[in-house]
Amino acid sequence: MNARLETSSDSVVESAAELLTELRAEPPLVHCITNAVVTGFTANTLLALGAAPAMVDITGEAGMFAAISSGLLVNLGTPTPEQRSASLEAVGGARTAGTPWVLDPVAIGVLPVRTALAQDLLALRPTVIRGNASEILALAGVSQGGRGVDALDSTEAAADAARDLARRTGGAVAVSGPVDLLVDAEQEIRIANGDALLTRVTGGGCALGAVMAAFLGAARRTGDSALVAASAATLVYTLAAEDAAAGSAGPGSFAVRLLDALSAIEPEQLAARARVQVAAGAAV
Amino acid sequence: MNARLETSSDSVVESAAELLTELRAEPPLVHCITNAVVTGFTANTLLALGAAPAMVDITGEAGMFAAISSGLLVNLGTPTPEQRSASLEAVGGARTAGTPWVLDPVAIGVLPVRTALAQDLLALRPTVIRGNASEILALAGVSQGGRGVDALDSTEAAADAARDLARRTGGAVAVSGPVDLLVDAEQEIRIANGDALLTRVTGGGCALGAVMAAFLGAARRTGDSALVAASAATLVYTLAAEDAAAGSAGPGSFAVRLLDALSAIEPEQLAARARVQVAAGAAV
Amino acid sequence: MNARLETSSDSVVESAAELLTELRAEPPLVHCITNAVVTGFTANTLLALGAAPAMVDITGEAGMFAAISSGLLVNLGTPTPEQRSASLEAVGGARTAGTPWVLDPVAIGVLPVRTALAQDLLALRPTVIRGNASEILALAGVSQGGRGVDALDSTEAAADAARDLARRTGGAVAVSGPVDLLVDAEQEIRIANGDALLTRVTGGGCALGAVMAAFLGAARRTGDSALVAASAATLVYTLAAEDAAAGSAGPGSFAVRLLDALSAIEPEQLAARARVQVAAGAAV
Repeated sequence: MNARLETSSDSVVESAAELLTELRAEPPLVHCITNAVVTGFTANTLLALGAAPAMVDITGEAGMFAAISSGLLVNLGTPTPEQRSASLEAVGGARTAGTPWVLDPVAIGVLPVRTALAQDLLALRPTVIRGNASEILALAGVSQGGRGVDALDSTEAAADAARDLARRTGGAVAVSGPVDLLVDAEQEIRIANGDALLTRVTGGGCALGAVMAAFLGAARRTGDSALVAASAATLVYTLAAEDAAAGSAGPGSFAVRLLDALSAIEPEQLAARARVQVAAGAAV
Repeated sequence: MNARLETSSDSVVESAAELLTELRAEPPLVHCITNAVVTGFTANTLLALGAAPAMVDITGEAGMFAAISSGLLVNLGTPTPEQRSASLEAVGGARTAGTPWVLDPVAIGVLPVRTALAQDLLALRPTVIRGNASEILALAGVSQGGRGVDALDSTEAAADAARDLARRTGGAVAVSGPVDLLVDAEQEIRIANGDALLTRVTGGGCALGAVMAAFLGAARRTGDSALVAASAATLVYTLAAEDAAAGSAGPGSFAVRLLDALSAIEPEQLAARARVQVAAGAAV
Repeated sequence: MNARLETSSDSVVESAAELLTELRAEPPLVHCITNAVVTGFTANTLLALGAAPAMVDITGEAGMFAAISSGLLVNLGTPTPEQRSASLEAVGGARTAGTPWVLDPVAIGVLPVRTALAQDLLALRPTVIRGNASEILALAGVSQGGRGVDALDSTEAAADAARDLARRTGGAVAVSGPVDLLVDAEQEIRIANGDALLTRVTGGGCALGAVMAAFLGAARRTGDSALVAASAATLVYTLAAEDAAAGSAGPGSFAVRLLDALSAIEPEQLAARARVQVAAGAAV
């Protein structure tokens, strides 16, 4: 890692604890436009954490609702024609009102409809982009992406693509994997918490995108950067996953326990268990 | 409360026990048009209780299916254009056939598309309207509603709005909250059972609307009023929630245990634990 | 049963063990077009088993994705206009590429839109048809089907209809019930494993259709027939259901434990517990 640290990992973890406290004190309203497979789990994840989810994915409502929301998630997992129109309307409302928003470009690359929509949304400069390595590579135009929702590429293999996307949007980019990589124009954060069971539950990654939107909402009050908010979301979520995995009997009980763990995790528990590294951005 | 009791709480609880027995003896077919977030949980709630759910939310099928169903739920949580048309078709079929139906005006007020649809459906006189206080106030035209699905108003603050809606529809109106308030033109019932964890699980309120449709179906055979059926649904559901909350480790395990509890609850368990008050309607 | 056994039940069970091993060694990509109620549970079922689910149900993507998938499920539970078009596009892609596909004609009979679509899809000769007895009878044109998703007819009552459909498609037909009946032109397999709790969880049958698509994907490498693949899927799934039912406190905990059990079940556990009978087809 780069030796020119501008932020220590202690500072990131401290910010995560403050953001979690802030989120619980005043639950952010999180506007979710997400795929049909994970809507229920995503809403339950946000409720367990302490945020207030709302799925508003029709035209005529999505734009105005994004404008009054604390944060917005646009997930491209099952983009019906109505959802595609609503996504663009929602992002328009978010941009006008200054609502931070997360783009999750699920399974782009080989699938043309969502890939075209993802490029249109990329041009609107999402506050945070979250995906697996294959999706990040595909969004950056480097590769054709994976097959479906599986990542076929390693997180570090997507680091240059993530940096490129961060430069183009001015925001943060999160690459999910065994070690999560989060970058913006100035810094790179690696988080080695989590559990492989997250990949055995549908929505394990999608719900993280919604949690990022919730933390972005809280960060509007604390003034933390998008990178710090996305890292805080990742840290809290992956630590809860570790709690859930301990004692679970498989993916079914893991998913149930993950919701319980998100509800139970406290800000003061983060520091001792966080496995976070911070480096200056490669471009510096 | 009004001293001119026409029905004792004992009578309401007794009817609830009879309706639960009736429901289990001949499972009502419950036609659900509901939002994408809670479809699975709603169906599982009905199955656990002992009813037979079916989601039929496309045009060309919704009307005829409502006509052969025992009860119908129309929930406006994610009203796509197809669902909006199917909802109107379903209500038309229900009215022609005499199928009782529940309107759940999720998150109306600030969101214009569903608010307009809710007003159209209100004019068709739902058998039961179920919502939180903010939704009931918005449907009655008193306020702009809450933000998303959260209630920002207390149940009693919506009592006059609920009475007004009951007068306009000739049916029953249920306001969900820490103390549930159910009214029709003649009576008011308050139920103080339940657990706050119901608000930490997505669909906690939406599924109750489906349970009301199931009890309305059973009440077609017993001759109980819509108010009694809706109260029976509320009592059974909130008592199951109490069972589920006891020993749960958070919202994840609570939701699982709620389904188990709905399956296990027996008619003879209601009386000892019911916290029900009955009063004559304010208009009498 | 017919005395002219061509395949012993030992052979079917042995193939099931081999297919499960094959599935876990190289997870099949299972393309699901399924109903809004069970999408999450279906994806979690496939992930727990060891397969890779992907829901791609929009036009412009469904055809090409079916062509690169290991197996395809088309479930007609909530067939929106977009899903109806996407289903036909997906089956076109599957047929061109040789991708095996499963048709689950949910609730056909009385509901005209899905019934017409099911007949169109039947003419395209699905590799496997899976339904309850009422659905199989309706698809064969023998009856009007059940009410909603409930089977009102016994499995054996649908045996002739299943044989007729198998003749018309050249594939396999699976009738789900307390004893599952699976037929093709040459053989009939009965499997008496499972648990009644599968009928108290939404998607209990729908997810089995997806599991069949996964086993069909694995069978492309082993060369097993569609009938053997569908039987293997049924055996593994119903044995996991038995594991889940033991010690569950109701339908909520059963569904969670089913996912854990699907993840835990091993090929060598099948033989001792399988209750499988094999007979030559009635037409032989």
